[in-house]
Amino acid sequence: STKQKILLLPGDGIGPEIMEQAVRIIDWLKAERGLDVDLSEDLVGGASLAKHDVPIRDEVIAKAKAADAVLFGSVGDPVWKDVPFDRRPEVAILRLRKELNLYANLRPAKLFDPLLSASALKPDVVRGLDLMIVRETVGGIYFGEPRGVETLPDGTKRGVNTEVYTTAEIERVARVAFDLARLRSGRVCSVEKGNVMESGLLWREVITDLHRRDYSDVTLTHMLADNCAMQLVRDPRQFDVMVTGNLFGDLLSDLASMLTGSLGMLPSATLGTPEGTDKQAALYEPIHGSAPDIAGKGIANPLAQILSLAMMLRYSLDRGEDSELIEQAVSNVLASGLRTADIAAAGEARVSTAEMGAAVLKEL
Amino acid sequence: STKQKILLLPGDGIGPEIMEQAVRIIDWLKAERGLDVDLSEDLVGGASLAKHDVPIRDEVIAKAKAADAVLFGSVGDPVWKDVPFDRRPEVAILRLRKELNLYANLRPAKLFDPLLSASALKPDVVRGLDLMIVRETVGGIYFGEPRGVETLPDGTKRGVNTEVYTTAEIERVARVAFDLARLRSGRVCSVEKGNVMESGLLWREVITDLHRRDYSDVTLTHMLADNCAMQLVRDPRQFDVMVTGNLFGDLLSDLASMLTGSLGMLPSATLGTPEGTDKQAALYEPIHGSAPDIAGKGIANPLAQILSLAMMLRYSLDRGEDSELIEQAVSNVLASGLRTADIAAAGEARVSTAEMGAAVLKEL
Ligand SMILES: CC(C)[C@H](C(=O)O)[C@@H](O)C(=O)O
Ligand SMILES: CC(C)[C@H](C(=O)O)[C@@H](O)C(=O)O
Repeated sequence: STKQKILLLPGDGIGPEIMEQAVRIIDWLKAERGLDVDLSEDLVGGASLAKHDVPIRDEVIAKAKAADAVLFGSVGDPVWKDVPFDRRPEVAILRLRKELNLYANLRPAKLFDPLLSASALKPDVVRGLDLMIVRETVGGIYFGEPRGVETLPDGTKRGVNTEVYTTAEIERVARVAFDLARLRSGRVCSVEKGNVMESGLLWREVITDLHRRDYSDVTLTHMLADNCAMQLVRDPRQFDVMVTGNLFGDLLSDLASMLTGSLGMLPSATLGTPEGTDKQAALYEPIHGSAPDIAGKGIANPLAQILSLAMMLRYSLDRGEDSELIEQAVSNVLASGLRTADIAAAGEARVSTAEMGAAVLKEL
Repeated sequence: STKQKILLLPGDGIGPEIMEQAVRIIDWLKAERGLDVDLSEDLVGGASLAKHDVPIRDEVIAKAKAADAVLFGSVGDPVWKDVPFDRRPEVAILRLRKELNLYANLRPAKLFDPLLSASALKPDVVRGLDLMIVRETVGGIYFGEPRGVETLPDGTKRGVNTEVYTTAEIERVARVAFDLARLRSGRVCSVEKGNVMESGLLWREVITDLHRRDYSDVTLTHMLADNCAMQLVRDPRQFDVMVTGNLFGDLLSDLASMLTGSLGMLPSATLGTPEGTDKQAALYEPIHGSAPDIAGKGIANPLAQILSLAMMLRYSLDRGEDSELIEQAVSNVLASGLRTADIAAAGEARVSTAEMGAAVLKEL
């Protein structure tokens, strides 16, 4: 069939609960807006380990490659904390990124005005915050070789990981950042640790050259990663688009998200092009984790998952209007005062995962 | 002579200005409190590059090794941003750490009550904040081999750095953290990225074993570095002593310091034992950088440098009483309302570097 194909991978913890609410919205889009897609679903992470003894099966990778987009929940479960390194739940997301060559992780940190008080930061510091971190996701120390733990002659051990970046890897993710900046404020801040790491120095050089060649209309600045961690706390609104490597991006984007105080609200997209194809591949997921402590209780916030669906509609399915409808519905629901536990202020009433999903549907 | 030897290394930017104020306090201690030390001073960083064409001379390293303690200002100057990698000003501090084997960097993030409003975080989130990050400083990706940038056959480049940690390196810094925890709240949080990096997995294993063997009276928890970046923003007071590797420590300790809103107030100590000796070596420095933008204007805050001196008196010179006198004087000066520009709220009067130094002296 020529129908667009969506693969749902709910994963672990609260993943299945919040995915259920996103699926309700998909069903509504099918019934009311003529969305015509093939949906399929599979296991990843701990859920896959439990049934198939691996964090993700090769056939799920193949399905994901064949899909137009993947809607992902989250992986990770303390039950599996002592499995061998290559069988941990996280391997699912790492393999998906690598094998689909999803090299650019777009992580917006956007403050929703009605949730201003949820932030640990002063309102004057974060009001209106809206930045976008573009994080490289298939290179760097996450995948570099050599890696591993070896036993030394005296019986003690030595652990090694390798940070590697090539010109080509840096350029392609930087292009994503520069292109995005053109649609936003026209500013990119590139972040590395080039005063200590040669790979960071190369990062800075390559981005500086690319900027001079192809993006001189965009304003480019550079910042050391440690200073960036400070500046995100001191004055986060100085940033618009940021671009950085896999490991710094992991820390800095989590930090940036937390500035909003509402992790349960933030979606993300990871985009790329599988090697040997010219097809765009994409995976959409909430930035929050699997939250095993509240899993199964029906209290998780489904909005990040629903907003991840909205991103998918815009970036992978060419349905910008549906995307806006959903974003508007979420915004109305928040304005009406509905809160799941994670975004409720002391004393505010809390609704369940399903009630929040229903409220978005009702708005639609 | 058997006099204790102190080496002053003011460095770049605001380093010399703030060091001058610390020296005034040393002079007072000599005159009034019977402090009897040999002081010498030398160049590091950009200042050394300008005069000697290297960021630090071997003879300065030798002097530092021979000293009982080093009081360091800060290094780094945009003038030198295009020098070859091995000649950048930062090499001075990196070589000092490595050659004196200063493996444990103690970075307190402590909120001074009169400066509560300087924080970007809500008062209720940071009031009373007092945590200590113990950062490994002679290993990890800062020093691991192979490293460097190579040119590929097609003319593009490849940058590499290597994260390496051995059992011995992890154990010795963890001991510092556990020992400190015994003097504080009895809690240590160890931070790594063991879900992605084998070196992080080894880090967690070694600390878990050491804890079981020698420190079972201390409470040990583990946290992933990305989550830690979030938790430091969400609820920093959950932490007491934290221990982590060189690179994570660089970002997380800068982040933690910024929570206080008053970088200009925070001292640090880096402790170790030069190879082949059983002597304690130590370097004391403000956590803030060289702040080239305000250098030479006489407006920098000298208190972090003065409090670094106080740490030196306690940890290296066995003069706890003098140390307390200084800390009390600083605290009184703050309580009296004196503020340099960096810690002044809008509308508050600002004193100069020299006026702040004089005020501390007057209190003494
Ligand atoms: C689950 C984990 C492997 C992952 C990462 O470190 O990349 C996560 O923290 C993220 O940021 O998506
Ligand atoms: C100056 C620089 C090399 C240094 C580091 O990265 O260690 C600094 O940021 C620090 O934290 O002391």
